[in-house]
Amino acid sequence: MSLIVQKFGGTSVADAAKIQRAARRAIRAKLDGKQVVMVVSAMGKTTDILVGLAREVAKTPPKREMDMLLSTGEQVSIALMAMAIHDAGHAAISLTGGQLGLITDSVHTQARIQEISRERISEELNAGKIVIVAGFQGIDESGEIYTLGRGASDTTAAALAAVLGAEICEIYTDVDGIYTSDPRKVPQARKMDVINYDEMLEMAATGAGVMHSRAIEFGKKFGVPIHVRSSLTDQPGTMIMEHKEGLEDVAVRGATLKEDLATIVMSRVQNTPGVAAEVFAEVARNHILVDDIIQNFIEDGKFANIGFSTNQSQGQEALEICQRMAKERGFGPVDLDEKVNKVSIVGVGMRSHVGVASTMFRALSEAKINIDSISTSEIVISVIVREEDGLRALQTVHKAFKLDQPPA
Amino acid sequence: MSLIVQKFGGTSVADAAKIQRAARRAIRAKLDGKQVVMVVSAMGKTTDILVGLAREVAKTPPKREMDMLLSTGEQVSIALMAMAIHDAGHAAISLTGGQLGLITDSVHTQARIQEISRERISEELNAGKIVIVAGFQGIDESGEIYTLGRGASDTTAAALAAVLGAEICEIYTDVDGIYTSDPRKVPQARKMDVINYDEMLEMAATGAGVMHSRAIEFGKKFGVPIHVRSSLTDQPGTMIMEHKEGLEDVAVRGATLKEDLATIVMSRVQNTPGVAAEVFAEVARNHILVDDIIQNFIEDGKFANIGFSTNQSQGQEALEICQRMAKERGFGPVDLDEKVNKVSIVGVGMRSHVGVASTMFRALSEAKINIDSISTSEIVISVIVREEDGLRALQTVHKAFKLDQPPA
Repeated sequence: MSLIVQKFGGTSVADAAKIQRAARRAIRAKLDGKQVVMVVSAMGKTTDILVGLAREVAKTPPKREMDMLLSTGEQVSIALMAMAIHDAGHAAISLTGGQLGLITDSVHTQARIQEISRERISEELNAGKIVIVAGFQGIDESGEIYTLGRGASDTTAAALAAVLGAEICEIYTDVDGIYTSDPRKVPQARKMDVINYDEMLEMAATGAGVMHSRAIEFGKKFGVPIHVRSSLTDQPGTMIMEHKEGLEDVAVRGATLKEDLATIVMSRVQNTPGVAAEVFAEVARNHILVDDIIQNFIEDGKFANIGFSTNQSQGQEALEICQRMAKERGFGPVDLDEKVNKVSIVGVGMRSHVGVASTMFRALSEAKINIDSISTSEIVISVIVREEDGLRALQTVHKAFKLDQPPA
Repeated sequence: MSLIVQKFGGTSVADAAKIQRAARRAIRAKLDGKQVVMVVSAMGKTTDILVGLAREVAKTPPKREMDMLLSTGEQVSIALMAMAIHDAGHAAISLTGGQLGLITDSVHTQARIQEISRERISEELNAGKIVIVAGFQGIDESGEIYTLGRGASDTTAAALAAVLGAEICEIYTDVDGIYTSDPRKVPQARKMDVINYDEMLEMAATGAGVMHSRAIEFGKKFGVPIHVRSSLTDQPGTMIMEHKEGLEDVAVRGATLKEDLATIVMSRVQNTPGVAAEVFAEVARNHILVDDIIQNFIEDGKFANIGFSTNQSQGQEALEICQRMAKERGFGPVDLDEKVNKVSIVGVGMRSHVGVASTMFRALSEAKINIDSISTSEIVISVIVREEDGLRALQTVHKAFKLDQPPA
């Protein structure tokens, strides 16, 4: 018997009517002859309300108690979902992360899944029940409660789908799929029918806020297709799956914008082995988040200019750290540019299509947008531009690669 | 080191400020050199709100899922309480019923405590922490979540106090103690300094809605004094404890009123062995709740009149059942009186004081209140009166026994 995992986000279980709608969807899959595992998030703004309560009683709430607090949100949802399914005349049972046997490491508020027991779920599925699992939570070996980080119900769903050998993991949400770019920024953005795991991972890493990256990693690692779709309609959404040759064979799948960045450039850094490593070790020790690194060599390779991008909010602190290092080590001046954006294009097709980079640079040049720096990986090309050019740059590359038009 | 259990009801943890106030009270006990275990209820109206949500999604929510749902209320409270104590600079840890090892039987929504493990609590107390326990909940041997019934956080507190050998179990609430009668009905009612377990149990059974009876039973069984007091002040409340000779040696401790009762009288029931038992077996089979039973004999003991009181809402149904039995068995007519009240006086001193009953009957007679029937037990005298006389009868007996005046 085939098995399906359906995950419903907070907006899809925000009130009684929406819970009942989600329940009907699971029942329909059951009546279609499938075993159904649901993963649900906390209702609507519940998590934000709980976080607000915590802030009211304590300036810095201990993380262990945050997990104790926040894990209740999903527990409320699973109980109500089970009730709604019962009310519609079908068998269902809710399970907390602990009851299910979802074991995490012991990092409060950011735990990672270590192991998922199949025993209890299989038992309940074999008894003909729809099994409803609390997303976002688990326990460690000692029974302590842990949460997996905001948005991590996606990860619970994908991990369960992997462990249970599900044919598909459906992610129900308030948008109808994954877009070539953020539709609020690019009105011409188009919903994609399909995207590869790697492309989805890179889009998430370069600014697309659609899905929890670890969920995609689970899907990729265990080969479970993830279907991101609307809880309001029956229209298909976007399938995240393994790349297949020939399938929508495009060079560029999507374009993303990362705002609120700053860049630091350290000049005349001695090009001796280990210097760059020492520089970034010091930066990391100060908890400065490094986005991209760009390094080039001057004066016949004797010196290098080392640049990196970071969050705007960390720009000043990063500058001070780098200036201190520059002074200690005799580098040249350090520059901070606090107002930059990063525009990226993502596509596994880049590997086989030539001229992708030049198309991007030409389009930006014709739009009179100056490129500060460039970084590339196998399936991503990113450029740093001035903050005021960011949105226009995104729209320009989206148009240049005809992302608004369906692939041939 | 002496140990104290402090229980805070829903009104005492209804918002951040109240949680912080409760936290300070626990910290004060800690600084006084005590080990402190707190038991907390769900915040304010949380449980009602959750019940409302359940009703929205299902007409008759499965009890197992109600337990899953309602147990979250206390989990929120314990997490916030632990945060508040941390924020005030002291060590604390919250524990769910399951984490603590509070094992119940397997009766959803009305479970009874079977066993409480001391191991985890002792470990945390010995590490210098204030331990905060979720009231009202536990798990069974298989890890299923159970709740103990509304108001049962009192029972969690008393049971913990018993198991841990606490010197006292403090119940913090929104009233300042136990009164000789309900102050809303008898404005002259007086807060008692002390009351015996048995008296408290009888007052609860005859209409006083102050505390969960099972909490008092635990206190009695294990000899733990229970101090019911206000969370708003430092004034002492009422101590529920073992009877000591000489201590506030009064005949009558308090007076209660039970409203919304109906009485049924079956006439000319054959007085042969087992008939009464069969009658009440049939009544119980139909889930009719029987309050008091009054039986008297007529015609030289050949026949009996058997009467009982029940909830007003079950009066008509009880009448039909009894009429059917009367017809089948050849009893006389069955009477239903749907509008009666029961007034009771309670006091262990009755055992040694004479004339208590006659004082009560005389006072009611002088107030021109007719007594329908009388039932007594060792420490209770109850009379059934007309509904319209109930409140006045309560006030009359309260005055007759001078309950508004402190004991000599």
